[in-house]
Amino acid sequence: MILTVTLNTALDITYRTAALTPHATNRVAEVSERPGGKGINVARVLAALGHESVVTGFVGGRTGDALRELLAAEGPGGQPAHAAVTDALVTDALVTIAGTTRRTIAVVDETTGDTTQLNEPGPTVTPAEWAAFLTSYEGLAARADAVALCGSLPPGIHVGAYAELVRLARAAGRPVLLDTSGEPLRRGIAARPDLVKPNADELAQLTGSREPLRATRDARRRGGRAVVASLGAAGLLAATPDGSWRAAPPTAVRGNPTGAGDSAVAGLLSGLVERLPWPERLARAVALSAATVLAPAAGEFDREAYADLLPRVAVTEQSSQPEQESHAPRQHR
Amino acid sequence: MILTVTLNTALDITYRTAALTPHATNRVAEVSERPGGKGINVARVLAALGHESVVTGFVGGRTGDALRELLAAEGPGGQPAHAAVTDALVTDALVTIAGTTRRTIAVVDETTGDTTQLNEPGPTVTPAEWAAFLTSYEGLAARADAVALCGSLPPGIHVGAYAELVRLARAAGRPVLLDTSGEPLRRGIAARPDLVKPNADELAQLTGSREPLRATRDARRRGGRAVVASLGAAGLLAATPDGSWRAAPPTAVRGNPTGAGDSAVAGLLSGLVERLPWPERLARAVALSAATVLAPAAGEFDREAYADLLPRVAVTEQSSQPEQESHAPRQHR
Repeated sequence: MILTVTLNTALDITYRTAALTPHATNRVAEVSERPGGKGINVARVLAALGHESVVTGFVGGRTGDALRELLAAEGPGGQPAHAAVTDALVTDALVTIAGTTRRTIAVVDETTGDTTQLNEPGPTVTPAEWAAFLTSYEGLAARADAVALCGSLPPGIHVGAYAELVRLARAAGRPVLLDTSGEPLRRGIAARPDLVKPNADELAQLTGSREPLRATRDARRRGGRAVVASLGAAGLLAATPDGSWRAAPPTAVRGNPTGAGDSAVAGLLSGLVERLPWPERLARAVALSAATVLAPAAGEFDREAYADLLPRVAVTEQSSQPEQESHAPRQHR
Repeated sequence: MILTVTLNTALDITYRTAALTPHATNRVAEVSERPGGKGINVARVLAALGHESVVTGFVGGRTGDALRELLAAEGPGGQPAHAAVTDALVTDALVTIAGTTRRTIAVVDETTGDTTQLNEPGPTVTPAEWAAFLTSYEGLAARADAVALCGSLPPGIHVGAYAELVRLARAAGRPVLLDTSGEPLRRGIAARPDLVKPNADELAQLTGSREPLRATRDARRRGGRAVVASLGAAGLLAATPDGSWRAAPPTAVRGNPTGAGDSAVAGLLSGLVERLPWPERLARAVALSAATVLAPAAGEFDREAYADLLPRVAVTEQSSQPEQESHAPRQHR
């Protein structure tokens, strides 16, 4: 079982409109809702890959009820028509709080294909609720093959929360992945997680460098045992104890990038649990990520595209020497 | 008791953002929710004026539950801090349906003060649900001092629905006000409601004329016993069996016009039930409408502004002769 933690879950609502006109009244043509937050997205992809997963974090209020109901309906018991029969279970171990789970609204403009995102602030979590979560988390982590800590912190949670959760997972002897940003990432990485997966912006914010290989190696020095940076259409860059690799999709893909990072996390986690060599883990993560961009529904992946892309991902080992700044002339050639 | 009908109720959500940037991710700073739909807004203002009111229409799903809970909390039992102790009750006589009540989202850009509105489509109402509503409506209308039919029709309701509701109210000997637009207004006005309150656009769509006095009188010929057109900042124009009047606020007011038309309806209805002469009804409606524009919260009215504006509304009787096109030179002078 893989445990994913989403402290700031969300009810993700998608509105389709003919065209979004600011400062006017817009009719929404179509409304859809699904359980959201990075760890929940990761668990959904893990289940599609055949890995049992357990989701935890906080949930509350009417939107929390809606999230749980939709999550239960996604399981094999009530799976939507597109789910494969081989899907594994996503088990709900969310902790109920007094506050109300936030909504996120993605307004998709059908003329341009662009999305305008509106994110509500999360509910404030009380110290007693955090304490109840920690007790539950310790029990779940002890049974997990791997733990993923994903996304932002809701109001009320201390900025070192992920560092605390990393230490607890390590104390239980479980591999732990951290996917967050800003100060929670800075504190969390110092607690020595097995894997961190920043995107280019998060990595630059952490290290001060926009040169990916240099920044990835710097992030390892800050405490990440392995660091896999997601570089958008350019794929992934990994710095690990076994070496460094770049993994890129065979062609640039166009579509909705929502959830592509979460699919990459699911690819890395499943590869870790299956003890795949790094190049195979990275190829899987890149193919899943590209297949997510190609899927018509935000945050889902196109299974056919995944199967087609997987053998065609190019994984190349990087020099073990620190790379020069990429814009500097390579005078040693 | 005044009965207000809102067939397409809504949970009105307001998002405050520093600035709304299309095609980007926007953090919502503040979220508020309240029961919405024109008839519910009218009932809220009637209650503030001391008139007991009953709201009916359709409600369903989680958003319907939220709407009812918020509506119950607005009553004297759980009134918000700003409500006066003299407020009368708003009683919930909404009919439950299988579909889910729509949400409307008003995104208020705090930099410009502008609002971007996103309106979900309403739930589809089944023939059995409409039949259940009609039975309930007949019983409620028979006990009402006046009936107001407000807003758009949800999917599944036939376009002559308001005409049917006007006829049932008239058969029960109850005065009935109609505030809608498009084909439901065209059909509804032919059933001879006591009062219709179109805005300038609705009136032009109905009559083909943008000359307000001409169009208002045309709307009377189509079946409205009295027609009160709301002309935005210019106030109201009334054509009634007792004469025609213009009523205008003493100064142009600036603010959020959301709900100003609903406040005008509440002013007209309360004046009808209190048997006020037309000039007093119109002055009340104009003062309430302007005090709604001035209130910080959308759809509420500023009580102090109302008391200040009421004696200063200018009501002028119009000639009983059909007015010439306003842009034509007045050659008879």
